[in-house]
Amino acid sequence: MKLYCAPRTISIAVTTLLYESGIHWEPIRVDIAGGEQTRPDYHAINPKGRVPVLMTPEGALTETGAILEYLAETAAPGYVPADPLARARMREVMFYLASTMHVNHAHKMRGRRWANEEASLADMTAKVPQTMTASCAYIESLIVGRYLFGADPTLADFYLYAICTWLEGDGVNVSQFPKLSAFIEAMEATSGVRQARAAGLII
Amino acid sequence: MKLYCAPRTISIAVTTLLYESGIHWEPIRVDIAGGEQTRPDYHAINPKGRVPVLMTPEGALTETGAILEYLAETAAPGYVPADPLARARMREVMFYLASTMHVNHAHKMRGRRWANEEASLADMTAKVPQTMTASCAYIESLIVGRYLFGADPTLADFYLYAICTWLEGDGVNVSQFPKLSAFIEAMEATSGVRQARAAGLII
Repeated sequence: MKLYCAPRTISIAVTTLLYESGIHWEPIRVDIAGGEQTRPDYHAINPKGRVPVLMTPEGALTETGAILEYLAETAAPGYVPADPLARARMREVMFYLASTMHVNHAHKMRGRRWANEEASLADMTAKVPQTMTASCAYIESLIVGRYLFGADPTLADFYLYAICTWLEGDGVNVSQFPKLSAFIEAMEATSGVRQARAAGLII
Repeated sequence: MKLYCAPRTISIAVTTLLYESGIHWEPIRVDIAGGEQTRPDYHAINPKGRVPVLMTPEGALTETGAILEYLAETAAPGYVPADPLARARMREVMFYLASTMHVNHAHKMRGRRWANEEASLADMTAKVPQTMTASCAYIESLIVGRYLFGADPTLADFYLYAICTWLEGDGVNVSQFPKLSAFIEAMEATSGVRQARAAGLII
């Protein structure tokens, strides 16, 4: 199994799940700083020019949430709650992370997706500490245990942890969120995060 | 079953699925133009101040993608492919719609989420036709039949249709996308869309 991935990106959600699950897989590093994801070769793999991309037997699969669910169904069982409402709560967080918290973060470095003027980009960048802190406050209100939903991690925890690696750089004072701080500490102690760090996939 | 919803919003994805499935449910209309979603009463239901919200036996469930999956598992079967990779493809589109296409659209009217200056908001608004047209081109490349994945609709089709109701207002020339145009026509003919329109939930 091959995954196109890069440090500092949301692909950390998938790399940590892959390591944690003990699946045999191979990282293919994409040089994001060098702009590899903008070149025709990479667009032939993912026309959206993003990571992660999972190479499946039937071609490239994109979007972090979809990749996590696919891995849970095919190779990494144990990270999806059995109860339908608990599963819905997991997905509620995953869609929030994808559509709101990751998007808040992206306004710092990727503002050109949505605006053209330098002044607009500066305005967006300046607001990131505020929007990311608000997202942390919402997440803090959800955490009920060591992980988001209690003693055991779900797919949403891997997704959340990847975003947490951005918080300091985004100007969030994480120490004001004790549950989130404890969650980060718990994830840092997992085999998945330790292996991803040792491999240079979290830096 | 009760759903907090409003015309012109992404809640159309859920209202059309509910009508199409013949589920007994009750719409609770949120006055978005009047700012009802910003008031404490509504924040007690959804602190994020958004629609849709599904009232489940165990409380409010938010995020369109999570609500659609929950309904498919509990009340509206038949809209999730049986094959794991086909299911992953459905989710790949759903996460793209949530994290990219809906977000592109939101930069027209909701730019204050990410910037403060009037000039930034104008800059964002001006770019929406370009980003939404690019999203349509990507979606056009995915459509393989009457619906996204062939002859039968999946959850992703309801999600996509809701966003398609915004395209004209977002300055997209939809006629340049023949597959997407045919998809919209197919959805317009469904019982779910017809009933939502008759109820004033699509206007």
